[in-house]
Formats: sequence, structure tokens, C-alpha cells
Amino acid sequence: MTAEYIKSVVKTVPDYPKAGIMFRDVTSVLEDHEAFHACIQLMKDKFSNMGFDKVAGTEARGFLFGAPLALAMGIGFIPVRKPNKLPREVVSESYELEYGMDTLEIHKDAVKPGEKVLLIDDLLATGGTMTASANLIRALGGIVEHAGFVIGLPDLGGYEKLHETGITPFTICEFEGD
Amino acid sequence: MTAEYIKSVVKTVPDYPKAGIMFRDVTSVLEDHEAFHACIQLMKDKFSNMGFDKVAGTEARGFLFGAPLALAMGIGFIPVRKPNKLPREVVSESYELEYGMDTLEIHKDAVKPGEKVLLIDDLLATGGTMTASANLIRALGGIVEHAGFVIGLPDLGGYEKLHETGITPFTICEFEGD
Repeated sequence: MTAEYIKSVVKTVPDYPKAGIMFRDVTSVLEDHEAFHACIQLMKDKFSNMGFDKVAGTEARGFLFGAPLALAMGIGFIPVRKPNKLPREVVSESYELEYGMDTLEIHKDAVKPGEKVLLIDDLLATGGTMTASANLIRALGGIVEHAGFVIGLPDLGGYEKLHETGITPFTICEFEGD
Repeated sequence: MTAEYIKSVVKTVPDYPKAGIMFRDVTSVLEDHEAFHACIQLMKDKFSNMGFDKVAGTEARGFLFGAPLALAMGIGFIPVRKPNKLPREVVSESYELEYGMDTLEIHKDAVKPGEKVLLIDDLLATGGTMTASANLIRALGGIVEHAGFVIGLPDLGGYEKLHETGITPFTICEFEGD
């Protein structure tokens, strides 16, 4: 099962959420067990043996890939959430994203200083969500140097943005021209 | 690794999201690999060999347990989402939940008539979210007879509500007196 197969399973929805956007929909990957399993296996092959202490995934689609990957890698999972969803003490970060503004939060005790944290999300577009997530983890003393995605959109600047903040992105497949 | 261990890992946050509520927080289960792995294993042991075609999980915490369980069971995962998150044609259902009102959506092509769908969420309280999710899947012709949860709160009426709608709930651990 290859990255080409996973890419073939992604559904493209034109003009969503607004005219001119080609939305790359991963729900079709989740519904296809072979494709979903291959995503987690490819990420596990890439990131195992790199000394990660935890995987962090961003609400909500980052949960779908980050939680199974943490289980497969034998380490804990940290949810990065929308505001007012986490019940204990949090740190917050507001940021610009592709279609507006948003805020993310993480539990203050989710990361210990010096822990190596792998960021996971479904899709790398502008990199805004991942940069905000990395800032939260770094604010708690965590080390963020790698991020993994099912899909990358190289024309939207996210690869460059992550490199500028010291993060190496890994994407299973790419869609150019978005 | 037992259900008692999983229960011991759940953190209780008093007076969240409002005074008098004892919030049972599963983020501590996610961060503990042994506890998280045991949750998925106990659900897999319970639900394998029952002929399920798909697992459905409700945004957002249902994604954290439903997606890994679908992978472990070798079947596809269907996300049940908040409004305006799914890019293709959907069916919608509004419902009352513990702290207000909400609406859920599912892709129209996510379930085929006659498919057996297992519902998964982190916590069974009033059963409102699960009933709405079951209604969506049944509207598409899917069969819903079982739902699995990490935590059950037996004093909030969800067990009875699910039984009344033809769904047998399974919970790994319970907190009474909530």
C-alpha cells in the first residue's frame, strides 16, 4: 500500500468552503481501512526511533491521525484544542489561519520541559495551525522539530513557514496548484 | 491492564464547565500509553466478531477512541461532525445535550443501507449525542445496535435513553453519584 494509493483515495471538493478553493477531503481515507492503516504505518516508519516522547494533534482532524499514531508508536497523545474545551489549567495562542482567525489551547501539564513532541495534522496548507501548536508546546519547554501530515499543499507556503520556525515537515502525498 | 487502572487514570475536575459538575477528563488517559492502549484493546475484545462494517465517532473526543478502534478492528471510520465541517452532501440532526443545544452532521455517502455501525464516544452522560448520531446513521439506512464508551455516568440517564432507542451501551468504567 503506497502513498499513491492514499492520494488516489482523497476526495477533492471544488469551491469548498468558498469559491476557488479545492478542498482536499480526508474523510474518504478514514472510511477506507487499507488507506487509513497505510497512513499510520508510513508515519510510524518515518518517525519511530527518533526519540519522541509524545505525539500532539490539533482539533479536530489532527486527532484522527495523531491518536492512532501515538498508540502505534507506544507513546502518549496530547490534544491541542479549541478554546474552552480543556478542563484544567491551559496556555493559549491566537493565530491567523487560511479562512480567518482562531485560538488553540493545551493543558499546562501536558508537556514536561525537554520532552520531544511530534506534531500531527491531516493537511499542511499555510502552516498557521502547526506554528501555533508548536508555540504552545515550546512555551511549556517542549522540543518541536518535526511535523507529519497526510496531505501537503506546497503552493500555500506552509513548508517554508515551518522550516522558518525550525520544524521539518513530512507529508505522505501532495497536491500542487491549489 | 484492567478497567480499574483506566479508571484510576481519569482525572476529575470539580465545578467544570459549571458549578456542581464533576468533569471526568479523559485527556490523562490519552497521555498514558498503557491506559489508552488498554481502552482500545478492551473495546476490540468486546466488539470484534460481531459483524460491524464501520465505526462512527462523534466530534471531537469520539475521534480519539473511535478512529484507533476502527483501525484495530480492520474496518473504516466515519466522523460525525459539528455543522459546516464536512465538505460534501450531509444529513443533519439537532438535539439537546447536557449543557445546551447542538447539531451534528454526517456525509450522505458515509453509510450504505444495511451496514452495521458501531458508535464510539469517550463518555456516556445523558445519551443525547449518541442518540443524535444513531438517528443520522439510521436515516441513511445503517443499523445501530451497540455503542461503546470509556466512561459511563449511570446517574444521568444515558443508559436508559440508549436502551429505549434500541442501543446496548458498553462502558469500560463508571463513576456513580455524578
